[in-house]
Amino acid sequence: MLTISGKNCIGYADSAMGAQTFQAVNPALDESFGISFVQATADEVDLVVSKADEAFRVWSLSSLQYRVDFLKGIAVSVRKHAAQLTHWYCEETGLPLSRAKAELERSCFQFESYAEAIANGFALSIRIDPSSGPGKPDLRKMNVPLGPVVVFGASNFPFAYSTLGGDVASALAAGCPVIVKAHPMHPHTSELSARIILSVAREMGLPDGIFSHLQAIDYKVGEQLVLHPQVKAVGFTGSIQGGTTLVRLANSRVVPIPVYAEMGSSNPMMFTTDALANRGESIAKEVAASIGLSAGQFCTSPGLLFMVDSAPAKEFLFTLSALLQQTEPQVMLHPGIFKQYEHQASGQLEESEILVNGLRSRNTIQPSLVRISGRQLLREPGRADEVFGSFATAIVCENETELISCLNALSGQLTAGLYIESNENGALLLSTVQRFAGRIILNGVPTGVAVSAAMQHGGPFPSSSLPSSTAVGADAIQRFMRPICFQNVTDDLLPNPLKFANPDRVLRFVNGLFTDAPC
Amino acid sequence: MLTISGKNCIGYADSAMGAQTFQAVNPALDESFGISFVQATADEVDLVVSKADEAFRVWSLSSLQYRVDFLKGIAVSVRKHAAQLTHWYCEETGLPLSRAKAELERSCFQFESYAEAIANGFALSIRIDPSSGPGKPDLRKMNVPLGPVVVFGASNFPFAYSTLGGDVASALAAGCPVIVKAHPMHPHTSELSARIILSVAREMGLPDGIFSHLQAIDYKVGEQLVLHPQVKAVGFTGSIQGGTTLVRLANSRVVPIPVYAEMGSSNPMMFTTDALANRGESIAKEVAASIGLSAGQFCTSPGLLFMVDSAPAKEFLFTLSALLQQTEPQVMLHPGIFKQYEHQASGQLEESEILVNGLRSRNTIQPSLVRISGRQLLREPGRADEVFGSFATAIVCENETELISCLNALSGQLTAGLYIESNENGALLLSTVQRFAGRIILNGVPTGVAVSAAMQHGGPFPSSSLPSSTAVGADAIQRFMRPICFQNVTDDLLPNPLKFANPDRVLRFVNGLFTDAPC
Repeated sequence: MLTISGKNCIGYADSAMGAQTFQAVNPALDESFGISFVQATADEVDLVVSKADEAFRVWSLSSLQYRVDFLKGIAVSVRKHAAQLTHWYCEETGLPLSRAKAELERSCFQFESYAEAIANGFALSIRIDPSSGPGKPDLRKMNVPLGPVVVFGASNFPFAYSTLGGDVASALAAGCPVIVKAHPMHPHTSELSARIILSVAREMGLPDGIFSHLQAIDYKVGEQLVLHPQVKAVGFTGSIQGGTTLVRLANSRVVPIPVYAEMGSSNPMMFTTDALANRGESIAKEVAASIGLSAGQFCTSPGLLFMVDSAPAKEFLFTLSALLQQTEPQVMLHPGIFKQYEHQASGQLEESEILVNGLRSRNTIQPSLVRISGRQLLREPGRADEVFGSFATAIVCENETELISCLNALSGQLTAGLYIESNENGALLLSTVQRFAGRIILNGVPTGVAVSAAMQHGGPFPSSSLPSSTAVGADAIQRFMRPICFQNVTDDLLPNPLKFANPDRVLRFVNGLFTDAPC
Repeated sequence: MLTISGKNCIGYADSAMGAQTFQAVNPALDESFGISFVQATADEVDLVVSKADEAFRVWSLSSLQYRVDFLKGIAVSVRKHAAQLTHWYCEETGLPLSRAKAELERSCFQFESYAEAIANGFALSIRIDPSSGPGKPDLRKMNVPLGPVVVFGASNFPFAYSTLGGDVASALAAGCPVIVKAHPMHPHTSELSARIILSVAREMGLPDGIFSHLQAIDYKVGEQLVLHPQVKAVGFTGSIQGGTTLVRLANSRVVPIPVYAEMGSSNPMMFTTDALANRGESIAKEVAASIGLSAGQFCTSPGLLFMVDSAPAKEFLFTLSALLQQTEPQVMLHPGIFKQYEHQASGQLEESEILVNGLRSRNTIQPSLVRISGRQLLREPGRADEVFGSFATAIVCENETELISCLNALSGQLTAGLYIESNENGALLLSTVQRFAGRIILNGVPTGVAVSAAMQHGGPFPSSSLPSSTAVGADAIQRFMRPICFQNVTDDLLPNPLKFANPDRVLRFVNGLFTDAPC
């Protein structure tokens, strides 16, 4: 069993210099836990970044195998401590054990699959154009790590987007030291996660500063981290307001740095009349389950349901309403999240036709569903804003032209879903949603983001700050790297992945072909 | 022969609504040409962006083969009009015909090689993870174009980084409509280039607005373009001041957009004492030629020469000085560039030991060389700032420790050069320059940026605004795209490159392997 101390981890050293403390809450009981967490001070932030920078000097030159072993070692150790991790996860979030277990496995898979993407060279984006004759240069390019990376834990994924999350896994895979600013809603889970990562690092003899973990409840700690000159990139998952604030700070620096902010989405879904006529009931079941999942606390939770006014649409909304009413009440992650949900939901309930007015009481909710017209959405674009939690707005349009106009008025979204029959209008709808979405799902729900090289989790602003990047899948590693070209550098001085013999057998794009052959 | 009208090209329509005009200058004669160019008005900017946006709706859905044919067609037509293009190029820039011809061929090669990177799928970054069983999604990801792109022509590459340049080639390859804001120092060359692109587009029947061309001498035209809501990305090559201004504007938008600004560099070179002892004379010849090339008007022109004080270093600087003094005087691109050079050079000549004080008269220069100590550089970091034009500063350090300190104090650079013997100190120097450089050249000069998939042209800020991107080589295409994942989308609705049969035979990363096999 690991001990939870409430202290910050400045590399391998525990530290609690600050006077400000905070406690976490069990949202199901609405009670605070006993342990006080000590907020990091400005001095501790300086110390942590300076350690990370020192660690980087050594670590950036280490072999790929070290990185791979580190990532795989974390997955092994996380599984070993699964019982303690999932216990605190459930205590701090009100989420069920089944979800905790699935998310823990997802975190482990991220560490493992990103390790694989480094081991086989995929994430290094190596290109080699050997000299084509006298006077022609030999050019070898690969991705190298940026430097110390700050990762902000997310409230809604205490494992998979927090201290054991995808941003940490991809930054470590990239070869960057990582400083986690823990999310204050689950500090126990986060400290445990940090101690697991640190113990693996220590056993491997990795440099002090390769990983650090800070607790904070004030914004100022995060601000100081993002503004620190030695920090080279930021990963964030959370609200539009939080994300855009960090982007603004990062752009105000003497040397601006990238902030990869995944800022959520309303995840519009479209249903053609034919689809609703032919299988409205089964669609309603899928959509109701997706809206209700984990109290809708997903960035991919469906919030907007577009359809054309018709008998099948009415029938569909009737069935969907009934199903949503049957959804078991669920505890939200935190009283703060519940309060925000209450506020956002009551805003959307106003001047809407209320189809389901779900329970909202003592951190616990049931889904709500409202209905508005296409014209109303075009008049009040705020109707398309995300409500964080189970809440959907059905936009019933007069005809397809109005529906397309509504879609064209939407801002950037992580996902867009289309329920259609055969190819009926498919091409038009697909080309319309392509304008604003990062992922397009046919005849399926947006919740459930597979960790896969082919995944795209990130869409046009404001769903993410840098839509050319993904927060899920091995391509996420590239966010924390930049390419360097080595021109005419002799084999003895080249990094291993670029050497003629290709000792690590990594994938390389050589003379226009992908191969692991020597060159 | 094509006619130069002085008008703007709003898609296929000529337009000259503005009252403000300007003329170009022959820098060798210091005389203006007769043709007046009409600056684009605010209405014309609106019109041009709206046309580009309309063109995008059609063009973004067109087949890859159209894009490939368009790019290749441009190269063919450029070669056909080579005589007229190179004539105006030389007239407007003072550069010799040999350079004009080489740069024209480079431009054509860019169009051709980027066409190839689209045809074979390299630039599409396709990843496919087919369903692995019941309930598991089929995921197919590829890059799609962002939308209308604005490209600012560069002063120093009237072909290769201007209207026929790498940013235009890569944005068109990506599938984006392009609006060029021509550089006012070579408007004849630029209008000719635009007319060639437009005539190819018209012959192919491409949508009006796929390409447009605006003349401007005021900053406000560029500002309006960058702030326009329908513009989705910006390419720029020029000064730090110009680039950071555009980045700031783009970040101030409601929906921020990426600005790919390549902002130049001082291109430090390091010479070990052993290298100078063994082959100082041949090194001096290479370095002198590189400093003198095209009057040093390259973003990769070497401006900083680091060495440790020693007899071979003194000998090297003596030889280098003699060679620089023998360099033929060369006309600079424009009286404005000459004035800026005079200003920057005289700043650096102050409080330096002047080794060569080259001619600076009537737009014409010879290289200059000054010597300072490592201590002076550490005290006055401005000594490392770029002088645009043939000007080098030798930084002679007391010992290697001071040299490493000097290197550690440098900001981001496009390139770093190392002249070393065998492996002597190579690893330490290489790891030091890796921190700040985008390309590292061993025993060679930084001028000459090969167009190759393995090229990296872009380094840490301020040498470029987004160091994870390159401005040269096929990876440049990705700057103007973002990935979309298609989940469970049926084959009939998928874009061709993602269809099971892979009809275009493009490269795809399928289940962890690169292949063009069906899947």
